[in-house]
Amino acid sequence: MYFSSDNYTGASEQVFSYLQQANAGSAVAYGNDSWSERAQAELRATFECQADVYFVSTGTAANALALSALAKPWDSIVCHGQAHILNDELTAPEFFTGGARLIGLDKQLPKLSLASLESLLTLDEPDLPHNSKPTILSLTQLNECGQTYSREELQQFCELAHRCGLKVHLDGARFANAVVAAGCSPAELSWQTGVDVLTLGATKNGALAAEAVIFFDPDLGRDFASLRKRSGHLLSKGRWLGAQFCGWLHADHWLELARHANAMAAKLGAGIEKSEHAELVWPVCGNEVFAILAQPKVRTLRAAGAVFYDWPKGCLPRGLPISAEQGFVRLVASFRTTAAEVDQFLSHL
Amino acid sequence: MYFSSDNYTGASEQVFSYLQQANAGSAVAYGNDSWSERAQAELRATFECQADVYFVSTGTAANALALSALAKPWDSIVCHGQAHILNDELTAPEFFTGGARLIGLDKQLPKLSLASLESLLTLDEPDLPHNSKPTILSLTQLNECGQTYSREELQQFCELAHRCGLKVHLDGARFANAVVAAGCSPAELSWQTGVDVLTLGATKNGALAAEAVIFFDPDLGRDFASLRKRSGHLLSKGRWLGAQFCGWLHADHWLELARHANAMAAKLGAGIEKSEHAELVWPVCGNEVFAILAQPKVRTLRAAGAVFYDWPKGCLPRGLPISAEQGFVRLVASFRTTAAEVDQFLSHL
Amino acid sequence: MYFSSDNYTGASEQVFSYLQQANAGSAVAYGNDSWSERAQAELRATFECQADVYFVSTGTAANALALSALAKPWDSIVCHGQAHILNDELTAPEFFTGGARLIGLDKQLPKLSLASLESLLTLDEPDLPHNSKPTILSLTQLNECGQTYSREELQQFCELAHRCGLKVHLDGARFANAVVAAGCSPAELSWQTGVDVLTLGATKNGALAAEAVIFFDPDLGRDFASLRKRSGHLLSKGRWLGAQFCGWLHADHWLELARHANAMAAKLGAGIEKSEHAELVWPVCGNEVFAILAQPKVRTLRAAGAVFYDWPKGCLPRGLPISAEQGFVRLVASFRTTAAEVDQFLSHL
Amino acid sequence: MYFSSDNYTGASEQVFSYLQQANAGSAVAYGNDSWSERAQAELRATFECQADVYFVSTGTAANALALSALAKPWDSIVCHGQAHILNDELTAPEFFTGGARLIGLDKQLPKLSLASLESLLTLDEPDLPHNSKPTILSLTQLNECGQTYSREELQQFCELAHRCGLKVHLDGARFANAVVAAGCSPAELSWQTGVDVLTLGATKNGALAAEAVIFFDPDLGRDFASLRKRSGHLLSKGRWLGAQFCGWLHADHWLELARHANAMAAKLGAGIEKSEHAELVWPVCGNEVFAILAQPKVRTLRAAGAVFYDWPKGCLPRGLPISAEQGFVRLVASFRTTAAEVDQFLSHL
Repeated sequence: MYFSSDNYTGASEQVFSYLQQANAGSAVAYGNDSWSERAQAELRATFECQADVYFVSTGTAANALALSALAKPWDSIVCHGQAHILNDELTAPEFFTGGARLIGLDKQLPKLSLASLESLLTLDEPDLPHNSKPTILSLTQLNECGQTYSREELQQFCELAHRCGLKVHLDGARFANAVVAAGCSPAELSWQTGVDVLTLGATKNGALAAEAVIFFDPDLGRDFASLRKRSGHLLSKGRWLGAQFCGWLHADHWLELARHANAMAAKLGAGIEKSEHAELVWPVCGNEVFAILAQPKVRTLRAAGAVFYDWPKGCLPRGLPISAEQGFVRLVASFRTTAAEVDQFLSHL
Repeated sequence: MYFSSDNYTGASEQVFSYLQQANAGSAVAYGNDSWSERAQAELRATFECQADVYFVSTGTAANALALSALAKPWDSIVCHGQAHILNDELTAPEFFTGGARLIGLDKQLPKLSLASLESLLTLDEPDLPHNSKPTILSLTQLNECGQTYSREELQQFCELAHRCGLKVHLDGARFANAVVAAGCSPAELSWQTGVDVLTLGATKNGALAAEAVIFFDPDLGRDFASLRKRSGHLLSKGRWLGAQFCGWLHADHWLELARHANAMAAKLGAGIEKSEHAELVWPVCGNEVFAILAQPKVRTLRAAGAVFYDWPKGCLPRGLPISAEQGFVRLVASFRTTAAEVDQFLSHL
Repeated sequence: MYFSSDNYTGASEQVFSYLQQANAGSAVAYGNDSWSERAQAELRATFECQADVYFVSTGTAANALALSALAKPWDSIVCHGQAHILNDELTAPEFFTGGARLIGLDKQLPKLSLASLESLLTLDEPDLPHNSKPTILSLTQLNECGQTYSREELQQFCELAHRCGLKVHLDGARFANAVVAAGCSPAELSWQTGVDVLTLGATKNGALAAEAVIFFDPDLGRDFASLRKRSGHLLSKGRWLGAQFCGWLHADHWLELARHANAMAAKLGAGIEKSEHAELVWPVCGNEVFAILAQPKVRTLRAAGAVFYDWPKGCLPRGLPISAEQGFVRLVASFRTTAAEVDQFLSHL
Repeated sequence: MYFSSDNYTGASEQVFSYLQQANAGSAVAYGNDSWSERAQAELRATFECQADVYFVSTGTAANALALSALAKPWDSIVCHGQAHILNDELTAPEFFTGGARLIGLDKQLPKLSLASLESLLTLDEPDLPHNSKPTILSLTQLNECGQTYSREELQQFCELAHRCGLKVHLDGARFANAVVAAGCSPAELSWQTGVDVLTLGATKNGALAAEAVIFFDPDLGRDFASLRKRSGHLLSKGRWLGAQFCGWLHADHWLELARHANAMAAKLGAGIEKSEHAELVWPVCGNEVFAILAQPKVRTLRAAGAVFYDWPKGCLPRGLPISAEQGFVRLVASFRTTAAEVDQFLSHL
């Protein structure tokens, strides 16, 4: 019963079989191999556009490099108060950008609100060069509370951002889960609504370690090759990243994996809703479930072998205090989660 | 009628006369001159302790260098949401520290609250190495809303900070005004209550460009000479900084200047309180006055030659919305402000 | 006929089979899994000491992170003028260290000389804080001219470095080739001669993407977890790195792979020495061969399918000018190079 | 007998009297005052062009900021091997540029040679993104060996640099001395020969602490306001810098001061040439004299009150070894040096 994180899994069989194929023979180094080129072409086809695509091996690198391609060291980057870039990547964004600042809004809400962003961007004119000016909006889809932004919401955020001179970055560590949840095409959930740069994560959803940074406006990526190299993120045997993406994308495998994970999370969420010892903190949209459980149940579950994280109390919605007899936990379903595992978990509630 | 900022003034006559004396003859370069040594000795006497003292020429440099002496690039620095280091120094703290993060609390309150700090530091255990851990508390005295922290408040903040493993930095750009306002000794308002590092500003209060960084624990300043040099803040003719401080400190000149500025601000505040076209946003403690004025009065005052800043609406207390017919302004009194100027200003209200 | 680089190969069968095993089941994320722990233990056994071991996926990251664990941003790092950290990692060392400086010596010699290092370190006393002081010596073993430093040479460098207050870093991207060439144990070529930190590369010699940073003095690695995380080099599925190292080390597989590569290079070098159209630039010690070839031969070889790099003329020994009819090339043998390939190559000379 | 450095002097009377004038009354902060504007206009007139001009208070800041306006963090900056930016500013250039690299050439020659630069720039094509590419040439005028580059030399350097895609920075800490020595106009020694950015130092030649960064192509300075602010180099009372430059430039005062200093150095040099206990290392062009003195003479001079620096032996020309009975010293004349002081010094030789 592993519900701790989708990064506790290995690679899917299909992805792994592509790695095996790619292992044969010699290949040009540093990402100039045919696997990488094929993966770039397939991502362009998947997103129905001429984007510039770069591969790296971690989500933190993908996000921080993408932000550093957009931000000057004295700019500010606006995000949700629970954003992964703000809370879970140490100070990687600051390091890669040379000191740009993150501004987290609406931490006590499950999603960034348009009103908060608008107030931040329009209430006062920045006093230059004393104030750091927001120039980037970074959204996460599926976000850190497991929520999706609808196509309409994304569009509104992008319009406001662009109107105020900001570029839009989308952290898509769980983009596959969001695509499945939203029932939109990848293009509709990204550049067609105004996203400028997407970091697309395969690692949590069937790959071993593979993330793509996709610049829908290639001009924004003009320094990326240098940024990636100087941060040690250019793999010498680049085919490993390309091959993973080829296997991941083939025949919509990535969406199939995400669909399964989402279904398992939905089943888990439905079970929790029915329990009198547990309650959902936010609705289940993708593959993440946030719940408050009675502490005895937390202990019982762990004793029975369930693995999951306690979640920071600072992430709870305002006005939802929990008692010492309650635990705030996150449960994540992956492409490997089975219905039997979920049933077993729920049986303890 | 200059109420825009205390940095619109020149140097006081006494400070300037010291510069004139110091201009004669040759002196060892890079701060190893006798004026600098004398100023360091006088600061130690003023603060009644064996501190390590370094001089620089701007407040931003003093703050950012002090923070960089304390923080690792992956640490977090907690401050009030209106702190100068957060709002008015571009991204200097991030630049100097190599990427440390500022966390601003209680922006809608005039001062940092102990409860907010305690909640931040104790609610959740940091998950290392993913979370950036707060390791520094930076307070401002006189703070950016013109408020003082009492000796007792400072002590409570320092105790909490030290208990949780944080060092305490005090931004004293207007420390003289705070000392006068609090009626305490410099030592009582700094190391005796637990402050580890003080940036002491002379620029806004009678000097030309002179700030001191005072490490009460000299071990904390062990890298300061390197940090200052590599950021271009080691003056070759260091005596200019030393001489200013000698003139500034001599015969409590600095406190006398601050006492005058505070008195002028108090007079201004009292006048505003009586006006039906104006109201104080926060009590007047030092030399800064924050007020909401009817817009016609703002226009009248400016037409009459009054110079002052509109203040960002984002700094207003929560629940104090202002209408389009009102202006939120900051009025600063300096050592050169005259009672006649204040009277003239008030006559237009 | 691939002689371009040892990073044109895939992973060895043994390494790949370990990856396959590691793919099964769930594992704790972020390097806290059992494969990583086992790999760390095996490296400690291999090096016969209690070192702190960290894994990353590229050599540039391994080197730059190791250097950043040792250097202050204002320090200097001494290396050979052809060092990989100086010439082939963009400005990664500067980026990770926050601005430390590389000093390259003896570029026109195939190895760093003790005399040059001694002169740099002892001729003049550094004038602080104006001069950047060398605090790290970084050697490469096998080095960028394909040379080994003998155990005695290493010892002399380490003694001089330590006497002058420098720490010693060893870039071991091809450490296996050097161990085989020198006929010493891994311990003898590292901590027993005074090396403080080793970056041990598996990627070029049978792994897919796996490098270890080994701190023989664990205290030097105390910030490594933070440094690695903030640079995006902490893999979420850390077992992939651990499993590669387990497969690589098992039953001296790594040394066997290196022994083969060295033998192929020796065969290639011997053939070149006999040719009248080619000459060796430096003796062949490990798996790299540097040669001057007549241009018609270069063309013939490439037409016949041989893949290899032209090498920068700036790396030629002083006093060895080459004419326009000659090419300076590097030929690298890998664990996959066959004797038949070498014979085929030589047949064209 | 102060010959240690031109930064051991105070400000000239004329410069100081301008400071005194500027001290009266209120002035807009942060460099938007009328003194700063006037100084900018006078510099434009002096250089006969429409340049963008910014003021800072130290030469290290001026140089490092100028370089950071030109360089990406992964670029290289070529300079002479004894350049101040390389040897005397700790790692300020690396810090401000975010990690760009300095490449020092021809350390054993008194000036950078065109041949060395050409070889560096044209021998090998950079292999991107692995190699750091030189994009800036930084020359010093008067240089660190006290030498001038003639107008023709400058032109050749600038042509080569521009042809290879480099921008040209001129470190003019002693530009006044070079202008006097070369007998050219300021424009002829800067933008008319191709210099893109000049850092013009007043500090060593009559000011207290005042340096200008002059962008002859204003587009290159577009980020300068942000770069200066985030590094703490924007003085709040900016008029102090403006007033110094006004006084310094007025009626060619700056050239008059430099002419005097150069004359004193020439007198000193001529005396040394005649002595049998001393010899010049390089010809005297400006206000710096480099000499080898018999050690007994060094002791005698110091006992008699002469103040001067021993100079690093690593800066000696190749092939000019000195014995233990000799000292390598630098003697600098300033605007305050008197003929009597020089005579007194020479009398001891």
